Amino acid sequence: MDYKWIDHIVIAVKDLNQGISNYQNGMGMELERTDVSEKLGIKQAFFNLGNGTHIELVEPLGPETPVGRKIERSGEGVHLVALAVENIEQSIKELESNGVQLIGADNPKGQVFLHPKSTNGVLIQIVEK
Amino acid sequence: MDYKWIDHIVIAVKDLNQGISNYQNGMGMELERTDVSEKLGIKQAFFNLGNGTHIELVEPLGPETPVGRKIERSGEGVHLVALAVENIEQSIKELESNGVQLIGADNPKGQVFLHPKSTNGVLIQIVEK
Repeated sequence: MDYKWIDHIVIAVKDLNQGISNYQNGMGMELERTDVSEKLGIKQAFFNLGNGTHIELVEPLGPETPVGRKIERSGEGVHLVALAVENIEQSIKELESNGVQLIGADNPKGQVFLHPKSTNGVLIQIVEK
Repeated sequence: MDYKWIDHIVIAVKDLNQGISNYQNGMGMELERTDVSEKLGIKQAFFNLGNGTHIELVEPLGPETPVGRKIERSGEGVHLVALAVENIEQSIKELESNGVQLIGADNPKGQVFLHPKSTNGVLIQIVEK
């Protein structure tokens, strides 16, 4: 596998504005932009960390969204870790041949998810960069 | 703050050999070395991810260690996220002046920890690189 770096981390928060205050005013991170994804059921805030890496805070739009259920289950904290690879198609082939349980491998569009059962509890996203 | 990149992620696992099997044989990561830290109460496995970044798996040496309590509380998964900065002394000054709750700031030795209360539930380590 041609891993390149840790691309980004997604952190689930209950209140995006309070999270932005912590990461911008407390930790001094550079807020790049905010967004809303109705499809993913989240409000998002992106912080640039240099060298193309970033931290993303997400607030669920409701309790029945994936992020809402994560917070209900285990509180605020890391929701997803994204790793950059050189070639996503090649990576998917290797992961499948190694027996890793994938989510979204039939229609990758530059990314695929590894099921936490295959990763000791971590939702890992592989992205082509 | 002069953040540079996401340096490494520490993932708590119940059984280091089973974790190594997932990350080496399943995900195809390059195992660099294993180690034991009696002081931290963990067995460790380090995987190189390129560009100086890495993933570290840790198995607790007992239930009363910090990692043992994390697994007891919330199961396997991300234990810590480490971010690289240019200058740790300057970073500590800025974080303290911003009111961030720090752990180990009196004797940093190239690193300091941010209390999860200040980071929406994520144990964040800042390392000078």
